[in-house]
Amino acid sequence: MAPKLTGLLETCLYVDDMERSRVFYRRLLGMDPLFAEDRITVFRLPDASALILFARGATLEAVETPGGSIPPHDGSGPSHFALGVAEGDVESWRVHLTGCGIAIESEVAWSNGRGHSLYFRDPDGHAGELVTRRLWARS
Amino acid sequence: MAPKLTGLLETCLYVDDMERSRVFYRRLLGMDPLFAEDRITVFRLPDASALILFARGATLEAVETPGGSIPPHDGSGPSHFALGVAEGDVESWRVHLTGCGIAIESEVAWSNGRGHSLYFRDPDGHAGELVTRRLWARS
Repeated sequence: MAPKLTGLLETCLYVDDMERSRVFYRRLLGMDPLFAEDRITVFRLPDASALILFARGATLEAVETPGGSIPPHDGSGPSHFALGVAEGDVESWRVHLTGCGIAIESEVAWSNGRGHSLYFRDPDGHAGELVTRRLWARS
Repeated sequence: MAPKLTGLLETCLYVDDMERSRVFYRRLLGMDPLFAEDRITVFRLPDASALILFARGATLEAVETPGGSIPPHDGSGPSHFALGVAEGDVESWRVHLTGCGIAIESEVAWSNGRGHSLYFRDPDGHAGELVTRRLWARS
């Protein structure tokens, strides 16, 4: 029996060019990062979770803080993540992606009325998804 | 101006041995996966988000569904993700990790009372974090 979990708190993307990715996500998300450094950029999302960009290869050593040590990590390859969007906002997101010059690679209408996904590629080839929040909700 | 986002909906981990990772996360999270296939295992979290395990190299082609095409993706390297835990449950999680035979690699007490993180490694070397929910909350 595990203690209670609340949900996802951080999703990370490893990027080759921090400035390029920061520009891309600032425009896509329509927000400034909470903080932006050469090694790490954090976008705080409305549910108090974070989309975090790490410069690839820049966190291969533990990061020491006054409160303890953050373990090393890194990644490569075109990974996947999804952000939830409000019901009824799919068309607005379609328009927004187009306005940002971001191609919609594909769309999926999920069965059983579970909503709709828009897929795009970020500058590193990561497969991003914008999907209506009810995809994983209990029916 | 971007349309509204709700927050994170999916974090993905690429794993070398799906059964091994499924056993690990089932025990750690204290829940059965929503579905479990050779290619993909989905754990639905309490906030209707999902922690998704993908067998490495098994999603290099698009997945066709009746409602559209899911783009290919993949990843390697010891990446990072974080799950939120309830305030006051850090000690319970410490006990639970130990009970699962999972070593706590390090801990961080965040400054300004922003909470506490427990870090562990999963079977693929991914750096998992259990952190009190208020880390990224607006102060």
